[in-house]
Amino acid sequence: MQPDNLSKQLEFIKEIDKLKYIQRKTRLFNSDRNENDAEHSWHLALMALVLAEHSNEEVDLLKVLKMVLIHDIVEIDAGDTFLFDAHRDSSKETEQLAAKRIFGMLPEKQADEFMAIWEEFEGGSTVEAKFAHSLDRLEPVLQNDSNQGGTWAEYNVPYEKVIGKVSVMDKGSSVLWGHAEKLIGSFYAEE
Amino acid sequence: MQPDNLSKQLEFIKEIDKLKYIQRKTRLFNSDRNENDAEHSWHLALMALVLAEHSNEEVDLLKVLKMVLIHDIVEIDAGDTFLFDAHRDSSKETEQLAAKRIFGMLPEKQADEFMAIWEEFEGGSTVEAKFAHSLDRLEPVLQNDSNQGGTWAEYNVPYEKVIGKVSVMDKGSSVLWGHAEKLIGSFYAEE
Repeated sequence: MQPDNLSKQLEFIKEIDKLKYIQRKTRLFNSDRNENDAEHSWHLALMALVLAEHSNEEVDLLKVLKMVLIHDIVEIDAGDTFLFDAHRDSSKETEQLAAKRIFGMLPEKQADEFMAIWEEFEGGSTVEAKFAHSLDRLEPVLQNDSNQGGTWAEYNVPYEKVIGKVSVMDKGSSVLWGHAEKLIGSFYAEE
Repeated sequence: MQPDNLSKQLEFIKEIDKLKYIQRKTRLFNSDRNENDAEHSWHLALMALVLAEHSNEEVDLLKVLKMVLIHDIVEIDAGDTFLFDAHRDSSKETEQLAAKRIFGMLPEKQADEFMAIWEEFEGGSTVEAKFAHSLDRLEPVLQNDSNQGGTWAEYNVPYEKVIGKVSVMDKGSSVLWGHAEKLIGSFYAEE
């Protein structure tokens, strides 16, 4: 270990505490309390542990866990981006700067590893990234289903737009997408 | 996959949402807002990723992650137990029942795996359990240090009691314990 590794690591650990203040649009199950990014990341990690068997292809579970645990840390600087926001893509550059600043607090080797994992997640092309994205899409579907449509109802999101954004799940898990599609269809059929 | 695996897994995923309502005594860094168990579990997972090199013995990182991610789920039924509470040990039986109920919602093989990991953590004797416990002790030390003594000050916990409860960290990581001991000593020296 380099002598200054620990102090850098502890500064990073304090910095990421701020993720607990980043509010998502989605709300907890059967609740009107917004979820924060730290809670969301923990929930995705548990979903990875429990649902890995439903990935279309076998995943490296440790890598999926790393992805979902760190995927939203950039939002400490960039803020939460709402899935159905038209300006969503314009935040990519801000997120890139955030990743460099925050992961850059770590010792160099770890900073490089965290940056690579985050970029792999963002790229969405590896087996692990596809499955991690499926989980990231599934959680708000389950939450909205428990909250009479949740953000779909609150922001009047049309059915086609929900399907357009959420169907990427199919690339990571056809089983989970099949379930999500039923829940979405069921909400819009009753509207 | 068994046909009913997914529905059991989804029920479990909804149930553990309740961890986000379990308030700890400790507060976020430089803050008077209490931390909840889901946030705490996420933070420990990040600490495991970042601090693994400081474990006294090499750890299976995936197992440590599983431990810290699920270690407090029993508190959904049993409630948070404060480290410096004299009645802490009496909650063991309640926690055992909680583990059976909540992990028991999963398909049998997963239920058995989660129970085994939780029991290994509770046992505290394997390399991974020792390191996971070190992280679980370190987070509130860092938080209290940032909050003018935090729970040590708020509950008038004597120096010897803090050392008595926190020094178990040494079994998992002498490096992290060395740092924690300095922070604790520094707070009580200034009192």
